[in-house]
Amino acid sequence: MDDSLAFAGIQELASLLKKREISAVELAQYYLERIDRLNPQLNAFIAVTADRALASAQAAEEAIAGGNYLGPLQGIPIAVKDLVDVAGIPTTGGSVVLKDNVPVRDAFVTRRLAQAGTVLLGKTHLVEFAFGGVGINHHYGTPWNPWDSESHRIPGGSSAGSAVAVAADLAPMAIGSDTGGSVRIPASFCGLVGLKTTFGRISNRGVLPLDSRLDSIGPLVRCVQDAAVLYQSMVGADPEDPDTWGQPADDVVEELEGDVACMRVCLPREYFWEDVDAEVEAALKASVQVFADMGVYVDEISLEELDDLAQLRARGSMTAVETYLNLGKDLEERLELFDPIVSTRMLDGREMPAHEYLGLRRDLEDLRRRAQAALGNVDALLTPTTPFPALPVEEVDQEEEYWRVNGLCLRNTSAANMLGLCAISLPCGFTRGGLPIGLQLIARPFEEARLLRLAFAYEQATDWSSHHPDLGAFE
Amino acid sequence: MDDSLAFAGIQELASLLKKREISAVELAQYYLERIDRLNPQLNAFIAVTADRALASAQAAEEAIAGGNYLGPLQGIPIAVKDLVDVAGIPTTGGSVVLKDNVPVRDAFVTRRLAQAGTVLLGKTHLVEFAFGGVGINHHYGTPWNPWDSESHRIPGGSSAGSAVAVAADLAPMAIGSDTGGSVRIPASFCGLVGLKTTFGRISNRGVLPLDSRLDSIGPLVRCVQDAAVLYQSMVGADPEDPDTWGQPADDVVEELEGDVACMRVCLPREYFWEDVDAEVEAALKASVQVFADMGVYVDEISLEELDDLAQLRARGSMTAVETYLNLGKDLEERLELFDPIVSTRMLDGREMPAHEYLGLRRDLEDLRRRAQAALGNVDALLTPTTPFPALPVEEVDQEEEYWRVNGLCLRNTSAANMLGLCAISLPCGFTRGGLPIGLQLIARPFEEARLLRLAFAYEQATDWSSHHPDLGAFE
Repeated sequence: MDDSLAFAGIQELASLLKKREISAVELAQYYLERIDRLNPQLNAFIAVTADRALASAQAAEEAIAGGNYLGPLQGIPIAVKDLVDVAGIPTTGGSVVLKDNVPVRDAFVTRRLAQAGTVLLGKTHLVEFAFGGVGINHHYGTPWNPWDSESHRIPGGSSAGSAVAVAADLAPMAIGSDTGGSVRIPASFCGLVGLKTTFGRISNRGVLPLDSRLDSIGPLVRCVQDAAVLYQSMVGADPEDPDTWGQPADDVVEELEGDVACMRVCLPREYFWEDVDAEVEAALKASVQVFADMGVYVDEISLEELDDLAQLRARGSMTAVETYLNLGKDLEERLELFDPIVSTRMLDGREMPAHEYLGLRRDLEDLRRRAQAALGNVDALLTPTTPFPALPVEEVDQEEEYWRVNGLCLRNTSAANMLGLCAISLPCGFTRGGLPIGLQLIARPFEEARLLRLAFAYEQATDWSSHHPDLGAFE
Repeated sequence: MDDSLAFAGIQELASLLKKREISAVELAQYYLERIDRLNPQLNAFIAVTADRALASAQAAEEAIAGGNYLGPLQGIPIAVKDLVDVAGIPTTGGSVVLKDNVPVRDAFVTRRLAQAGTVLLGKTHLVEFAFGGVGINHHYGTPWNPWDSESHRIPGGSSAGSAVAVAADLAPMAIGSDTGGSVRIPASFCGLVGLKTTFGRISNRGVLPLDSRLDSIGPLVRCVQDAAVLYQSMVGADPEDPDTWGQPADDVVEELEGDVACMRVCLPREYFWEDVDAEVEAALKASVQVFADMGVYVDEISLEELDDLAQLRARGSMTAVETYLNLGKDLEERLELFDPIVSTRMLDGREMPAHEYLGLRRDLEDLRRRAQAALGNVDALLTPTTPFPALPVEEVDQEEEYWRVNGLCLRNTSAANMLGLCAISLPCGFTRGGLPIGLQLIARPFEEARLLRLAFAYEQATDWSSHHPDLGAFE
């Protein structure tokens, strides 16, 4: 197969397909062959849907040949986090509890992706029930971060397999879900672009819930343009999901190359910077200059709402309450089927009294209003996505240390979910050891177009997104 | 003072004021004199704002004289449930816990009513924290239902004082709040029209919350036209209350006389009819013929959602959880300040686990969707408002019997709140003993115009709203 396909982006592949310089079937075969070869080592996919992929590719090929061109995603292979329903294929949610959970109906996004002509390669691994930011899964195995072939480093979670698949070019694009950072954390650790969409932007119907007021579907890809194209294919109102009704329209692809001069990016003084690795901090500081050079106005901001958020979080986890509601029966009757790093947190959800929960919800609503008002004249906050680059699994996978690292992985990203915002993570450098560093931009609700425009400008001004891991050692 | 003012409706009073056949000050004096004379017996008002009323009336009079006519509510006196903030006057919520709670700012509806030129006569009694449907208040006394001068009968609650004030013509109109029936139950027992507005139709800002997802402000008046005029003055988005944003517009006064022929009114087969008094049932059955004679299509309907609602209610009270959140500290530290018929239910809210609460909320959301869909081609449900007419206080005010009667008072009305609907209660007859009987119409969310049109047509076809209690015996 053509080596020139390696790490090709969506636009490049779409152009080859449209010009019929490659067929959709050949393209699917290219990735299926790589999955065959590399997935045993990398463990990105929990299920590979080769026959289905080839059939979809065949259909796309015929449609393109017949002049029925649907757009830039037609014939492009995709990997889907195994939390999203595809009719007839189990949705395990990364848990053995659900190993026989075969949906009869596609999720909203599955339908949308099919309508756009994408080719499903398979379903990807995740943290059990998406409840964790490190990426460890003791039942199905932890995907291998492709940026280090010698040491098994954390891929980031919970969308670990989706990130590893794209980082290792087992797929040109993937989707994940982000409840507290599950798209952005693996994007940061795997050198990808990950977009956390505003809650309500993309329908969660047919997606296994973690926290139904926070869950958001988003793209995990290798460049900002790919994020924009994939995002655009999934947005919009779902008649069956009231959470998606009444959202403002946008066309992020159209606006991607818009001017960023005079936009305002702020570094928050608080919250995001504790325990940040020196190399991460240096990369972030360097990125400030890049933005400034583009004419972006960069300054610092104090947001007392972030301290309030930390205090609110200390009062307990609303997510744990919801997981206990959804899984309490299984937890009580079949606890041995759960990974303790997940079930421990879920069982916390059994204890909270209802009045405390309602108080938390009310205070969070108030905090959201205040935070969104405080961001009124800010185009984006600039923060590290994760405080450190990918750590070795064996360092993290120890009772107490796991909780500390998991909390730190999630801290910077979950602020956006809790406050009802949208955010993006993109590469902004590498450590001396060659591990990617992620930069996070956070914006007000439904400002994805603004985020993507800023990220695209930054990407154009740097070359971080053009680096790829050396996969030779995995062969 | 002119006897012709007795039990005059808003339109009649507005006409007299506009033609300057009576002055607003004379009108205020008429009601203040009646309050002076009758309130010691009837106990409708907790606070009378005579000086303020006369000053407002003077201002209205001068405005009308100066050609600055604001509309049919200008110069019309009103009584306000003591749950609604009026700057500078205590909002007790019917509780001694809040006897010194003096708001610095008007509630949204207080402002609206002032802008319309109404004249506040005072604040009216209610069940402590509005948490009960019978109307009993052991701390401030239970208002006397004016339809029986010999026996102290329950006025219905929680807006007991507002209903008694209007029924006894101590005020031509009043507002109450309805969380489970608190406007419609006293309307039923006191022979009034009471409108339970759709949640979100009228801002609750500045209204003491009972259940912030169910509370709704509504008029308590003597005829449907008055309900429409008073309703119209309070509806619309409040920039500070997101719950009121995005509601459909309506003009119920304009639409009041619209045709009702071919509208569909359904009698639900389930839920509303158990333990219904024979005279109440007979009055309801007679009302069916009245609707049929107007060309309304009346039939029966089975709504399994009502059985599900009864089951859901048996799982616990979300309202109790919220009251415990709001008042838990006072309940724990100063329980003796609470009426046991209220604190007992509030303390229930301490025990529910958060996951059960969240499950209830989720199941209720689902039930609402199903119920509203099932009402897709139904213009209104027709039910008794309360299963029986006003009972003697001494029969009800006994530990176990109180809970039974309270539950029955609330059963038929609270279905509308729980399912997110709107509803109206209006007189549909009298018992042989001369007690009013209430008919309830329930409609889909934001269908107040439809409800009022049906109610107006029914009222025009009967003369129930023209009956008034004989107050001679109270003098």
